Amino acid sequence: MNYRAVSKDTLIAFFDSEFPNNALTIESVGDKKACIRRTPKQEDLRPGNTVSGPFMMSIADTALYVTILAELGLVALAVTTSLNFNFLRKPTANADVVAKCTLLKVGRKLVVGEVTLYSDGDERPIAHAVGTYSLPS
Amino acid sequence: MNYRAVSKDTLIAFFDSEFPNNALTIESVGDKKACIRRTPKQEDLRPGNTVSGPFMMSIADTALYVTILAELGLVALAVTTSLNFNFLRKPTANADVVAKCTLLKVGRKLVVGEVTLYSDGDERPIAHAVGTYSLPS
Amino acid sequence: MNYRAVSKDTLIAFFDSEFPNNALTIESVGDKKACIRRTPKQEDLRPGNTVSGPFMMSIADTALYVTILAELGLVALAVTTSLNFNFLRKPTANADVVAKCTLLKVGRKLVVGEVTLYSDGDERPIAHAVGTYSLPS
Amino acid sequence: MNYRAVSKDTLIAFFDSEFPNNALTIESVGDKKACIRRTPKQEDLRPGNTVSGPFMMSIADTALYVTILAELGLVALAVTTSLNFNFLRKPTANADVVAKCTLLKVGRKLVVGEVTLYSDGDERPIAHAVGTYSLPS
Repeated sequence: MNYRAVSKDTLIAFFDSEFPNNALTIESVGDKKACIRRTPKQEDLRPGNTVSGPFMMSIADTALYVTILAELGLVALAVTTSLNFNFLRKPTANADVVAKCTLLKVGRKLVVGEVTLYSDGDERPIAHAVGTYSLPS
Repeated sequence: MNYRAVSKDTLIAFFDSEFPNNALTIESVGDKKACIRRTPKQEDLRPGNTVSGPFMMSIADTALYVTILAELGLVALAVTTSLNFNFLRKPTANADVVAKCTLLKVGRKLVVGEVTLYSDGDERPIAHAVGTYSLPS
Repeated sequence: MNYRAVSKDTLIAFFDSEFPNNALTIESVGDKKACIRRTPKQEDLRPGNTVSGPFMMSIADTALYVTILAELGLVALAVTTSLNFNFLRKPTANADVVAKCTLLKVGRKLVVGEVTLYSDGDERPIAHAVGTYSLPS
Repeated sequence: MNYRAVSKDTLIAFFDSEFPNNALTIESVGDKKACIRRTPKQEDLRPGNTVSGPFMMSIADTALYVTILAELGLVALAVTTSLNFNFLRKPTANADVVAKCTLLKVGRKLVVGEVTLYSDGDERPIAHAVGTYSLPS
């Protein structure tokens, strides 16, 4: 399979079409990196003025997927094989979660990347993830 | 802090009170193990007749939490510090996800456990997780 | 590539030939499981009557490799792509380390397994690992 | 317990005293980061002109330990509780392994950091690790 990087606009159109309710903002892509953000909904909040773990895990996985698609093209069949999370600080409920991803390896079969999550406006990371995607052969 | 194991009924009442919409069934608890299940909602399904990653990650984290509460009592302030997931097989959309958790270590500061996920009715695991919770001092 | 399970004796001969100084005892293999043990050398011990982390990580990785070879045959080119360790209790210096591995998934491209480590004679786990091997295509 | 950052020279003296055969070069420390290097010995090499996994895992763990000591002082009782490794590319046998560590969180009970490993002279990472240390209370 031949892979080819795609633009931010192509990615945005792809996500709007495939995941109509994604509520995702793709801020930047390119050079094996991407930055995305998402606003927690009411159902993503938790007592104590914080954001749910699944919301954070979901945006980390999505950030990895966006970065892979930006690098390789619309490889819709890429699937997550592993994700490792460390939860570092309590997120803020009334702030977007921002996810910055960098790919560490783009192989023929596997892609590995790391993601750091932030509450918008605070430079201290709230969580860190490392994930692996398997590419279709 | 003194910890004391609690019964399945106490746990069910706790979850119904604290998380009214949890849609969680606690099947068994005890001896540092627990088994829970949850039915995916429409919003947890994904194209290709499968279940979303965040749904699986969420039930794995919950299984760990249930097992810790069963072992130590209602330690509401226990927080997840790390989770490591391996996605093994495509889950089935029209089956409950069943999560079986075993605690590997119950320390004074940290609890470590592993969770295996299944699509109900199939004995092959769909995902495996290892997680760490930090206990309040 | 065609894979075929091999016997414990074949595995022992393979390890003796390929890794002459491995100091490894293969206790049992079969049914996607294996149990191995290794005696720590002087250089593997650490102050405080314990065993080094690298020794534990090495035997966990080896246990996974042995189990994969037992299941698939002598796939010499299988390589570790990820390993996740949790250190649970202080090992005992004057005891063998015993590693019990179970494969969670044997796919065409990836094999995932978990390993629990013990100090011989104590049933409480000292460490737990989950690892992924990539198979040659 | 009160913690206080220490200098590179203090750290070098500490490692020379505590681990006389460590063969470790501490290149830089400070600002929650450190860079160390180590030359693989004959016993750390593997067929195919490469370096053993345990050698890489060991230097990653050491890099985390050095960075923590630099940040917090000589907390000799800090212990590794988890390590997650991704092996990205085959290392080169005849090059030092260089480990660059950044702490993601320095809490009262836990420190989390990430480490990227390189074969000296090649800017593509050979492995990536995320680890957690528990601090004495």
